[in-house]
Parts: sequence; C-alpha cells; structure tokens
Amino acid sequence: MASEWRCEPISGDMILFAPDRVRRPHAKSDQIDWTLPADDPFAEGQEHQTPGEVFALREPGTAANTPGWLVRVVPNKFPALSPGSATSSPAGVEFASHPASGVHEVIIECPQRESHLTRRPIEQTRNVLLAYRTRMQSLRDEKSVRHAFVFKNHGRFAGASLLHAHSQLMGFPFVPPMVLKGLDYAQQSTGDAFTKLIQKELEDGLRVVRTSPQFVVFCPFASRFPYEMWLLPRRRSSHFEQTNNSDLFELADVLRDVLLRLEAVTGDAAYNFVLHSAPFGEEHPNYRWQIRILPRITGLAGLELGGGTHVNLVLPEDAAAELRSDGATM
Amino acid sequence: MASEWRCEPISGDMILFAPDRVRRPHAKSDQIDWTLPADDPFAEGQEHQTPGEVFALREPGTAANTPGWLVRVVPNKFPALSPGSATSSPAGVEFASHPASGVHEVIIECPQRESHLTRRPIEQTRNVLLAYRTRMQSLRDEKSVRHAFVFKNHGRFAGASLLHAHSQLMGFPFVPPMVLKGLDYAQQSTGDAFTKLIQKELEDGLRVVRTSPQFVVFCPFASRFPYEMWLLPRRRSSHFEQTNNSDLFELADVLRDVLLRLEAVTGDAAYNFVLHSAPFGEEHPNYRWQIRILPRITGLAGLELGGGTHVNLVLPEDAAAELRSDGATM
Repeated sequence: MASEWRCEPISGDMILFAPDRVRRPHAKSDQIDWTLPADDPFAEGQEHQTPGEVFALREPGTAANTPGWLVRVVPNKFPALSPGSATSSPAGVEFASHPASGVHEVIIECPQRESHLTRRPIEQTRNVLLAYRTRMQSLRDEKSVRHAFVFKNHGRFAGASLLHAHSQLMGFPFVPPMVLKGLDYAQQSTGDAFTKLIQKELEDGLRVVRTSPQFVVFCPFASRFPYEMWLLPRRRSSHFEQTNNSDLFELADVLRDVLLRLEAVTGDAAYNFVLHSAPFGEEHPNYRWQIRILPRITGLAGLELGGGTHVNLVLPEDAAAELRSDGATM
Repeated sequence: MASEWRCEPISGDMILFAPDRVRRPHAKSDQIDWTLPADDPFAEGQEHQTPGEVFALREPGTAANTPGWLVRVVPNKFPALSPGSATSSPAGVEFASHPASGVHEVIIECPQRESHLTRRPIEQTRNVLLAYRTRMQSLRDEKSVRHAFVFKNHGRFAGASLLHAHSQLMGFPFVPPMVLKGLDYAQQSTGDAFTKLIQKELEDGLRVVRTSPQFVVFCPFASRFPYEMWLLPRRRSSHFEQTNNSDLFELADVLRDVLLRLEAVTGDAAYNFVLHSAPFGEEHPNYRWQIRILPRITGLAGLELGGGTHVNLVLPEDAAAELRSDGATM
C-alpha cells in the first residue's frame, strides 16, 4: 500500500499516511457507551448539583438556577483555574511560570438528558454558539484573561468525564501555543496564508466536506486524526466574539451538519473540537478564528506523543469523499 | 488549591499544574489488564508468526528464526513504513510531502511470555539496549534513513496492540519535529542549554529521581504527564548509537530502576518511552540523546490536542519525591 509523509505547515508536525482500505478505523464497541446516569447533574431540575450559573438562555420569567433554561453556563465544579488563585513556584527555581488565576466554565448545551447536541433541533446549536459568543465577550473585559479557549470533549475516549452534551471555556493569561502558531502562520505569504490555503482547498476540492456562503469545512492535507476537519470563515475574521447573528446562525447549520456526517461515518466515535480565536484586544487582520474537529478513534502512542509524528490510516481526500457522500439531513 | 502555569522551554507547550493531593492519578483497573494470550506471537517457539529476524542475540549454535534467542528484531508485520514504498501525492496539490519509504522494526524484548521487561533480570535490559544500538548502527548506512526513532508503547492505554514486552524502531527520511526542537534548544545559552539544564536540576535537586556517574533522571519542571521523567547523559553525547558498552550497561541499571519505581508509584500504569538522538551523519556537539518516559494515566482531551496546553495533577517536585522514596531493588 502506498504511503506518504505530509508536513502540517502550521504546527510543523509530520503525518504518515498509511492508508488501509481494508480496516478503516471506526469506533469500537467499548468506546461508544453513551448511557447517561439517571441522576445526570447537568439535566434540567438538577441545578442544585452545579455551581450557580454565570449565564443562561431562559424562558421568560424563570429564575436563575431553576428549570426553564435552554443553555446554561456555570463555573467548573473542579476548576483547573480559578479567579485570583495563588502561584506556588518552588523556592530557588528560575524557570518560567505564570500564576494560574483565570476562568474555567462549563457550557451545558441542552436541558434534556442527552449526550449529542446534534440530536437536538438546529435552534439548540445556535443557542450554544450564542453562549460561546456571550461568554467570550464578557471575558474580554477581565484583566487576567488574554485569551478564551473553547473546547468540547465528546465521549469518554475524548476525555469527557460526564456524557451530557457540554463544552468548556478557559480564560488564559497567555495565548495557547497552537493558537500562537496559527497567528504566526497568518503572517506568511505576505499575510495571505489563510486566504491562499482556503483558495487552494476550494480549487482542489478533493478535501472539501461542506461549503456555505460564509464558511468552508475541509479535511486538512496533513490531518493528524482520521476524519479531522477544519471549519474556517471564507472572509477575514479574527475574533469569534465579533461574529454577527446572521453568520452565527449559518455557522450553526454548517457545524451541526458536519458533526452529523462525522457521527455517521465513524460509527458515533468520540471527538474533540476546539475554537481558535485571536487574543483579546489585539489586531490580527490576517488571522481567522477556526474550529478544529479532532475525531478520537485511534489512540495516541509513543510516536505521536514523543515524536510529533503521527500515523493516520485515512487520507484526507478519502475522508472528505466519505463525509461528503454520507450526507445528513439538516 | 494553588495552581500554576509552566512553560516547557523545548516544545513551547504550556502546562497547568492543578495539584490534587486527594485524588492522585493511578492506573484504573480497566487499564491494567496485562494478560498475554496463550498463542503470544512474540514468545519463543512462535517465530513462524513474525517476519524473519533482521537481528537477534542468540545462544551459540541456534539458527535464525528458531528458539534460542534472547532479544529478537523483526520487521513490523503491518509496517507503516517499508523500504521503497511509493509516494502517492494527489494530483494538483502543492503541499509539502515526502515519499514514505523507510524502516519499521519491532524489538521483541524477551523470549518469555512477559509484558514487563523490568520483571526480567537486569541482563535482559542490557540486551535490549544492545539491540537498539546495533540496529541504529545498521540504519546509519541506509541511504533513505536520516533519523532512527526508538519508542515503546507499554500497555493498551499507551497504544500497544500486543502486550508482550516490545519496542519499535522507525527509520525516517527527516528529523522528527520533537527531536528538531531539542536540536534547536541545544544551541541556546551559547550552546550550553542542556549543560545548564542538568546543572540546575542537580543543584535544585527537587525534581531529581536518580543519578549515576554518567546519567541523571529527573521529572521536568513543565512535565506534560504525571510522573514524566527525562533521562539524560551528564556529559555531552549526541548520538545514542555511539554509546560504549560500559555506559550502556550503566544505562540499563538506571533505566530499569526508574521504570520499576514508576510501576510501583502508579499502580502499574501504561507508559510510552521514546529515545531522542541526533540525526545520522550530522555533528551536534551540544545536543544530548535522551530517553523521555511518558506515563499514560490520565487521558488527553481538547485542551491538550487542540491547544498545546496540558493539565497535570502532579507537580514534578511531588512526583520526584514519590519516585525517589518508592525505591525498587535493582
């Protein structure tokens, strides 16, 4: 079987494509137990099980921390970061460290006992994106927060400890390394790197999964993961929290559609997605916010974690063809 | 609980230490099933189940691919790389890619049905290191191979598909990104970065797990994984395959000792280790080959895979104290 190394230009990672048409990776049965517990702490009526909400979309007239919400954002009960937490550098150390004050919140994506946001009507995906935008706008004004990072761990194999549909938001005092690499990449090709990348993907067409007037979703040329997808705005747009309602609703359609396609093609495998956006209060006209969807079907081993070298059994051209044809209804 | 961000200077990764003294991470029961199958394809007597050996340490008078071996190296039965395999760049693409010819071998670490090299006498660890050195010396002369990368996936949670003690060697036409970062790092501090790092760790002492005349093992200041350890030669030494017998035997003692300590402290958790060494035929006087041991207790999620930001529940100072005190007999 022909195989090939590809270099991911933003991270510098090297990906070895060893396509195996016989054994396409799908979620194994022990990876797809999506059963939610009866006492689901994120379900409507269980508001007392979480810290008090910092934001919610609610039915008119309902009180905070009671039923009647559509999306609910609460501080993480076991925060890795908390406002004003102290630093603890060991004595005598001269290495670089930052105190870890900051923000760590959970976006509860629906009130029903439900593991998949995609199983709710499209309005619910819109509500979740509205919650992301609102919380990012709030964090923009926090002195200790330079960057807000939204991520979703969908399924245990993707690191989720609770299966109720949720995502998380962390407010960092620095720009995460992978976002930093994207900001650097944006300056290449005399500031036109993302424009050229998108043009090339649209022209080639081989790796494109879905387009809409404002957005494009493709499997990157050097995907680290089988069926990996990147969703980008077609026009320059650096800060997610500045997205207008019209674009946000179009984004909801596109995101939900490609996640449904992914779930169909991979046999309901776990995945992570992350939202990269420019740091608050900085101009990055050539950067684009982006959503990277990272399916978690195969494990990560020494080659990946110790080398920055990945093996991927599915070429992105093949992945995109499957994702295009295994269409989901919107 | 006080928490802190630390920057790993070689990779640029950001690590959030959120120490949790109540819930120290240990291998979960479903992660530590080490039962080997009765028809273990790597056991003595099963030589017909693997491709023919390219190297073995053998009892005098025994023939290749028959019983009587101590360590056996065979081509990977399902190679991600193979000599002379063709490239398959899709038409019209201008992205960077390399043909993936190369070498992919398996080092079978002992003839017994055994998952843990550490459970065999010290001579066996020496034999394995001798096999690494011998195969790397052979690959040095292969035109298509610029760098040989040795890695070990120990346990299913670390990506192993077979539990019989084994490691793998891949011959790359390029330098793996993480090794490249180490080569760059070596040039910092006017070429003294590794010397200074080791000096500082020895002076601080807080993160040191084990020293020997030639080697030091410490938990790095910005460990990505709980109980992560780096093993380095104390004196400049760039190419592992140039290690002499005396140092190799001392290395076997040190490596086996710290792996035994790790297995005791983590409740026999899975781990990866990787051997970083300078590219063949290049002078890198300031670089040091190194072994990085990456315990796999907690999972990787969106924050890690999409951000380059890691959460680690165990400060390396605490990890080193535990690893020092939970001594293993050598």
